[in-house]
Amino acid sequence: MAQLDFWYDFASTYSYLAAMRCDALAEAAGVALNWRPFLLGPIFAAQGWTTSPFNLYPAKGRYMLRDIERLGAQRGLKFRAPDPFPQNSLLAARLALAVPEALRPEFSRAVFLAEFGEGRTISDEGLLGEILAGLGLNAAETFDKAKSDSIRAQLRGETETAQKLGLFGAPSFVAGDGEVFWGDDRLEQALAWAKDARDK
Amino acid sequence: MAQLDFWYDFASTYSYLAAMRCDALAEAAGVALNWRPFLLGPIFAAQGWTTSPFNLYPAKGRYMLRDIERLGAQRGLKFRAPDPFPQNSLLAARLALAVPEALRPEFSRAVFLAEFGEGRTISDEGLLGEILAGLGLNAAETFDKAKSDSIRAQLRGETETAQKLGLFGAPSFVAGDGEVFWGDDRLEQALAWAKDARDK
Repeated sequence: MAQLDFWYDFASTYSYLAAMRCDALAEAAGVALNWRPFLLGPIFAAQGWTTSPFNLYPAKGRYMLRDIERLGAQRGLKFRAPDPFPQNSLLAARLALAVPEALRPEFSRAVFLAEFGEGRTISDEGLLGEILAGLGLNAAETFDKAKSDSIRAQLRGETETAQKLGLFGAPSFVAGDGEVFWGDDRLEQALAWAKDARDK
Repeated sequence: MAQLDFWYDFASTYSYLAAMRCDALAEAAGVALNWRPFLLGPIFAAQGWTTSPFNLYPAKGRYMLRDIERLGAQRGLKFRAPDPFPQNSLLAARLALAVPEALRPEFSRAVFLAEFGEGRTISDEGLLGEILAGLGLNAAETFDKAKSDSIRAQLRGETETAQKLGLFGAPSFVAGDGEVFWGDDRLEQALAWAKDARDK
């Protein structure tokens, strides 16, 4: 089966848009999607940014909010910007690696919906614990695992891999042959590429 | 008839992609498209950038080249990056304002094709003169007009208008109600918006 890696950061608005539709589109395209959370922060920092480019460049930030609102409305998705933006996505990313892999998409969508559908704070352990419990997981055990050295190292490794792949934003999609697509608006193209590459 | 303004900079690769397809799509959508050349340079400078973000952030620049190449291939468009990138687009922008308005799209597409289809230097008066002559225009007279105080002032005014509209990149599309869409990949959405706004 054709494979496509879906790289996302929980702080990223366009990752929210992609997360809410990518599984359905991948299934329709016959492509297996691998959800790979990572952190944009270290990648931004390496190019001299101390915060999101949407904060560094206010005109771009205002446009992004309107763009997400418009696209969300077309897709029946609520949008409410969390405060502060960007949210600290570290714990959510560690948890996404700590939950059973089969539950990672559902966990991730729940985090994105709380954050960008309701404007909630995703570094809050109360919220994250509710989400874990809603998936039938033992929240305390999952937090312990998420804070373990092995999960910390795994997330650092994923972020380093993302950087080596040349990723500089989220969401990004990477096909089996290394082809990179950046942005929710490249999802269809990435799925078509992954399918073609596999059929060759 | 519904109206949509197409703001473009001759140095912009994504403006090339949009320029080569926007008239056909606008016609099919029943939208009148106004071609409005402007300069991104002063807008970039105002946010502290001394060159294109694709040069400032090399990973993004490498990705952009690949993205344009892929999209161009899908659309049957050649792509060859000019050297240096970005090109100095000042004279081409002044000429685009100096030619008869009905010829502006055709002049602009010819400049974009020379620049990004063949990698040529668009500040070169020889090249620009050939393009003008190819449109049946008197090149010497058009250069004189392009370098006149009134065209210089008009281009400065357009760039200031772009900045006031909140534009921060090119291409951008602005509907009659002030709604802004950024990027070649938002062209279809912008046309639909312009049409809806007009039908209301």
